[in-house]
Amino acid sequence: MMENKVFLSFTFYSTILILKMYVVAIVTGQVRLRKKAFANPEDALRNGGLQFCREDPDVERCRRAHRNDMENIFPFLFLGAIYSLLDPSPTVARIHFLIFCVGRIIHTIAYLLRLQAPTRSLAYSVAQLPCFSMALQILMATTPYW
Amino acid sequence: MMENKVFLSFTFYSTILILKMYVVAIVTGQVRLRKKAFANPEDALRNGGLQFCREDPDVERCRRAHRNDMENIFPFLFLGAIYSLLDPSPTVARIHFLIFCVGRIIHTIAYLLRLQAPTRSLAYSVAQLPCFSMALQILMATTPYW
Amino acid sequence: MMENKVFLSFTFYSTILILKMYVVAIVTGQVRLRKKAFANPEDALRNGGLQFCREDPDVERCRRAHRNDMENIFPFLFLGAIYSLLDPSPTVARIHFLIFCVGRIIHTIAYLLRLQAPTRSLAYSVAQLPCFSMALQILMATTPYW
Repeated sequence: MMENKVFLSFTFYSTILILKMYVVAIVTGQVRLRKKAFANPEDALRNGGLQFCREDPDVERCRRAHRNDMENIFPFLFLGAIYSLLDPSPTVARIHFLIFCVGRIIHTIAYLLRLQAPTRSLAYSVAQLPCFSMALQILMATTPYW
Repeated sequence: MMENKVFLSFTFYSTILILKMYVVAIVTGQVRLRKKAFANPEDALRNGGLQFCREDPDVERCRRAHRNDMENIFPFLFLGAIYSLLDPSPTVARIHFLIFCVGRIIHTIAYLLRLQAPTRSLAYSVAQLPCFSMALQILMATTPYW
Repeated sequence: MMENKVFLSFTFYSTILILKMYVVAIVTGQVRLRKKAFANPEDALRNGGLQFCREDPDVERCRRAHRNDMENIFPFLFLGAIYSLLDPSPTVARIHFLIFCVGRIIHTIAYLLRLQAPTRSLAYSVAQLPCFSMALQILMATTPYW
């Protein structure tokens, strides 16, 4: 596997996206501290008092971005790995990974910076295209083994 | 790996379930549009006005179904892959994958169509059985290497 | 892969953590029953009446613990697998997996038992260290293939 250049390319883009998700987590924590909005009483107590155990729209926005990442990037980690093992054209495969990676980075930027609709949903939809393509190719290769 | 028939069977069922999750995401978006209930002000603004940035019980139902999928299907993607490499009986392995796949599809149907309890929790519990079985078999095979 | 001792060690710790997540799911269900707080009307109806379709702070706490697990343990399943294939020192690799595993178990205990801050965030941060380390090592190995 570690001599399969498509797989190595896939792991590069996947790791970039996981680090991107970690950044969203860190941003969420920073917004919680700045807006003083904590999910747990024990955190609020340590940061000024129980009144800061509350919701905040900016925190919720970060959490929605993070959840959307989980809904979409985690399936990519699976589909991309299996697709890489199907011996696809390296150029075509790299286009799949690149579109997904760029689409998801734009999705996060559009979410956190509240860019005008439909920037975010467009980025989401474009990023889904390589996922559907990979899923269909995997099904075509594995249907005989159901 | 791509000559291991158990692994190919596993990838088939996994990809079906990932596509099933994508369907839940698409349904969520459709319900948001139909009920006019958006999570973000920028989406509401594009769809009639800020008053449509609101929660809706049908949207929340879709989101709970999706989240439950993440909690259960993602671990399966890991457990099933490792289990496939343990050289299990192909028939027994396929039964594991099939029970999980059918259980999770019924879970989604029961969730979105509000089927009477305990249909949904029963489907959830049945789908967990092959997961526990695979997890235990992996632990038995790998405990010497902890 | 199943002769790679680092990979086998990784699968052991990963499976332990997936079982740990299943325990959080089971605890959530038990708290829902004990506190009579259900997310769905059909579940509430079966357990005493529609008035029990309601939120509960203890249930929400379990759900936050579970979600934080998804945000962090699922990426580990990917990073750890790829890192294992990079031929790392078995001792160093095991330290990575052990720190993550112990950190995440302490995180769950601190969450569910409401341990005083910053126990939980400290466990979270310590568990992220091996993840960042593995992500950087993967990037260093795969950047030529982007």
